[in-house]
Amino acid sequence: MKVGIAGIGHGKFGRRSDATVQELAFEAFRLAMEDVGDLDRKDIDASIIGSVPEYHKQRSLPGVVVEYLGLNSQPAWLTEAACGSSSASIRSAYMAIKSGLHDVVAVLGVQKMTELETPELLALMGRVGDVQWESIFGSTFPGYYAFYANRHMYEFGTTHEQMLKVAVKNHHYGSMNPKAMFQKEITIERAMAAPKVADPFTVFDCCANADGAVCLIMGNEEKVRQLTDTPVWLEGVGSATAAMSLLRRPDLVSIPSAKDAAEQAYKQANVTPDDIQVADVHDCFTIAEILAYEDLGFCAKGDGGKFIDEEQSYIGGKNPVNIDGGLKAKGHPVGATGASQTYEIVSQLRGDAGERQVDGAEIGLTHNVGGIGQYTFVHIYRRD
Amino acid sequence: MKVGIAGIGHGKFGRRSDATVQELAFEAFRLAMEDVGDLDRKDIDASIIGSVPEYHKQRSLPGVVVEYLGLNSQPAWLTEAACGSSSASIRSAYMAIKSGLHDVVAVLGVQKMTELETPELLALMGRVGDVQWESIFGSTFPGYYAFYANRHMYEFGTTHEQMLKVAVKNHHYGSMNPKAMFQKEITIERAMAAPKVADPFTVFDCCANADGAVCLIMGNEEKVRQLTDTPVWLEGVGSATAAMSLLRRPDLVSIPSAKDAAEQAYKQANVTPDDIQVADVHDCFTIAEILAYEDLGFCAKGDGGKFIDEEQSYIGGKNPVNIDGGLKAKGHPVGATGASQTYEIVSQLRGDAGERQVDGAEIGLTHNVGGIGQYTFVHIYRRD
Repeated sequence: MKVGIAGIGHGKFGRRSDATVQELAFEAFRLAMEDVGDLDRKDIDASIIGSVPEYHKQRSLPGVVVEYLGLNSQPAWLTEAACGSSSASIRSAYMAIKSGLHDVVAVLGVQKMTELETPELLALMGRVGDVQWESIFGSTFPGYYAFYANRHMYEFGTTHEQMLKVAVKNHHYGSMNPKAMFQKEITIERAMAAPKVADPFTVFDCCANADGAVCLIMGNEEKVRQLTDTPVWLEGVGSATAAMSLLRRPDLVSIPSAKDAAEQAYKQANVTPDDIQVADVHDCFTIAEILAYEDLGFCAKGDGGKFIDEEQSYIGGKNPVNIDGGLKAKGHPVGATGASQTYEIVSQLRGDAGERQVDGAEIGLTHNVGGIGQYTFVHIYRRD
Repeated sequence: MKVGIAGIGHGKFGRRSDATVQELAFEAFRLAMEDVGDLDRKDIDASIIGSVPEYHKQRSLPGVVVEYLGLNSQPAWLTEAACGSSSASIRSAYMAIKSGLHDVVAVLGVQKMTELETPELLALMGRVGDVQWESIFGSTFPGYYAFYANRHMYEFGTTHEQMLKVAVKNHHYGSMNPKAMFQKEITIERAMAAPKVADPFTVFDCCANADGAVCLIMGNEEKVRQLTDTPVWLEGVGSATAAMSLLRRPDLVSIPSAKDAAEQAYKQANVTPDDIQVADVHDCFTIAEILAYEDLGFCAKGDGGKFIDEEQSYIGGKNPVNIDGGLKAKGHPVGATGASQTYEIVSQLRGDAGERQVDGAEIGLTHNVGGIGQYTFVHIYRRD
């Protein structure tokens, strides 16, 4: 039995002090319901919320969200895998449907990050690293990824300019995405000259915390075909973990969980990296997108800098990546990001991506990393 | 394809300042691995953590837990549904296995609640109620359940003494459970005279916050038969939600999500309430167990007080309930409670419950409520 996506809805990402967390969820849910057209809320068998709960004043989000959306009394629960939380929801929905337990499932990636003051938010986010051995010494996410950046420069001669070319590309495409937090082009010169965050990163190497929500209506083959004329099927669900502590990682130039998850997904979907016509990858920092090119097999290990130099991840290149702006331009409401990536891939495979459309895209991929690669989810989608 | 439980491990519940959250998880995991005997960690395809993450210093628990348990690089994620979090994990494992995606899954219900100071913990717990309409006015869980208690007394003449008889029973059985936080009998007189918490509740009507962990090794029929001679099958997985806000509930004498979840589980397992030979129900407050008798159909609505008066929930009664001591005597490490209930039912169905054994038990049930019934999970188990 195939599992597919029948409806998608993407709220505006950014600083959303205009909306509570349940209102953000509703904004995305309403769009997804309009997208499917003919679905009664009573026919949504279950709701899975992807979120990191502790950044909200309200706890136990599924309760408030399903009440506000009118989805009681169907079951609901939350999945958390740091920044991969809503990919864990998508994977859970896949299992729920494939098991036969549910026919139609709503996935809601939803996150508010701006209710907390920045120092409190940063302290909490730091605790997604190993509290006993790492974050207690002051390590934060820019620092973790800066280790990767420096090691990649040392081993492969990758340059900071190459990293910032990722940011230039993603802001370029983000300028065409009305849901993105930032819709302006940037230049290498401006990005290089910007304030440093963690060497070599400037602020333009780093994605921004954001608020936002994305809803996906998933179902079994029969239901999806009833609900849409442009079904997109989830054909590979790779997922893996790696040691939380960087000191237990085999090296600092790849994310082992990403390689493992990609291998599973390619095998299950019976495709190769060369078949991926459009991908959304986890560019929380510019180096992370370069690692993704390599870990996903779009290019060889160490060649990620060259890959962006040659614009192979632009539309028209070998594997267009983050044509929606990525986390870099869209903003990164952590629990919503995996669902946002899926929204983009479904739009592309439907041929609905407008001026950002990759012509004739039939196969797409999402790569959603939690933490510093404690978790990676790689999903492969295919249109009919 | 049947889904079953091959191995179980239950750590000590209580104030566990001797152990980090990953050490608590390991304590339970080690016992479960010893219980199954012949299972390599590499053959555990996925780990699902049931926990309310925000009570811990360490965030994103699956990362630290699977690293500490040596379960990398297999996938891991967390499920949250307030006090029903690990029942959401069990349900997710059921779907993971039934879908064919995984053959063997470790469920780890794990929670530390004593790392936080009590006022901070209580403030956070209050936010599991509706922040916008309820907890902002100071409502807390004893207060929510006290509404139920008062209304039940008003409508059905239930007495506070009947409620405390639930506590007397549960402490009686808890005195025989070495994993319980409290292992002492109590008397009605002492319980009635104890300090008030929220009218009519005294401290003896309320369960205690605790630390602890429970591990379940679940698998498909083939794997479970390989791993154990005493398989227990999960034959009904009911789950439902109800409005977060009490003001949107139809009445205050039943938990609608519990009735819905029970109906689903009975139907799927093809059994009736009279078939349930042993049950673990969510007695976070004494009234909650009385509501459970009724919502599960062990007795008619309003007859819960009489049910405990007649000792129908004792061993030898119509439906023995919380023969392990319940949340009341075991303590309530919220994310571990659903898995702890399952541990008890599996022990009973295996005939391993010692002096607390219900003779010849073949069919058992767990009833795990999240929040004030935003979520309920009802699972039905059967031995071969």
